[in-house]
Amino acid sequence: MTDFMKEAIKEAIKAKEADEVPIGAVVVCDGKIISRAFNQREKKQNALAHAEVLAINKACKKLGSWRLDNATIYVTLEPCPMCAGAITNARIKEVVYGCEEATSKDNLCQKIFESDRLNHHPAYTFDQTHKQEITQLLQQFFKEKRQKQSKK
Amino acid sequence: MTDFMKEAIKEAIKAKEADEVPIGAVVVCDGKIISRAFNQREKKQNALAHAEVLAINKACKKLGSWRLDNATIYVTLEPCPMCAGAITNARIKEVVYGCEEATSKDNLCQKIFESDRLNHHPAYTFDQTHKQEITQLLQQFFKEKRQKQSKK
Repeated sequence: MTDFMKEAIKEAIKAKEADEVPIGAVVVCDGKIISRAFNQREKKQNALAHAEVLAINKACKKLGSWRLDNATIYVTLEPCPMCAGAITNARIKEVVYGCEEATSKDNLCQKIFESDRLNHHPAYTFDQTHKQEITQLLQQFFKEKRQKQSKK
Repeated sequence: MTDFMKEAIKEAIKAKEADEVPIGAVVVCDGKIISRAFNQREKKQNALAHAEVLAINKACKKLGSWRLDNATIYVTLEPCPMCAGAITNARIKEVVYGCEEATSKDNLCQKIFESDRLNHHPAYTFDQTHKQEITQLLQQFFKEKRQKQSKK
């Protein structure tokens, strides 16, 4: 069986190589990847260009539907509120994330998935298999960023 | 002075005329509208195509920047979590909404704007001036939808 989190990590590595915060996502339907994307906020100069939003956008276009009922999204990092909201709005049935967001103490992502305002509640799974690799990828990225900035 | 909520309502009316849930938004910088949009989820068959996201997307492209620090967004209805997250990610300084979301009892929008996960916290203002007009626009839309469906 394909390790879809590994595929999301491949996307995150593409982000790193493009000097973007390394986060990647893939959308899977019926055991197949229907879209994949990595964070491109800096390149696109667009606040919406997170991995999950780009992957959902591609998936909607591919299926010709705003409803991705049958889809699972694999994302390397716990989604931000925008992406958690986008996942819910697209009726994605399950979110699998590979690393917890360290700065979030308020369980906001979970609150969005469970909100009574939204009439859809995706399943929400933390797959720890590649947690260490994803954490290192993020930490290394920010360490190098700090080093570059301190040399300026 | 331009009544920017009235401009957002003009967008919401365009949505209604296109048989979309009537929600509109305008992004304002230095007293001028830099982008405007209405909900187009059904036409675009895209879960991301809410008024706020479309308006932010246009504003980022227009300014060539993911940072809309100097912007205020006027939106007819209290934003959903996706749009509240998008507004925060874009560093928009103020959100003015014209009608409360009746189905939300958990103040999720406010929690997103105040979250410790996000390092930006937009000001959040309820302008009640056109509340009645916006409420009627929404209620009328859903009433007509129900009537059409009951005739099927």
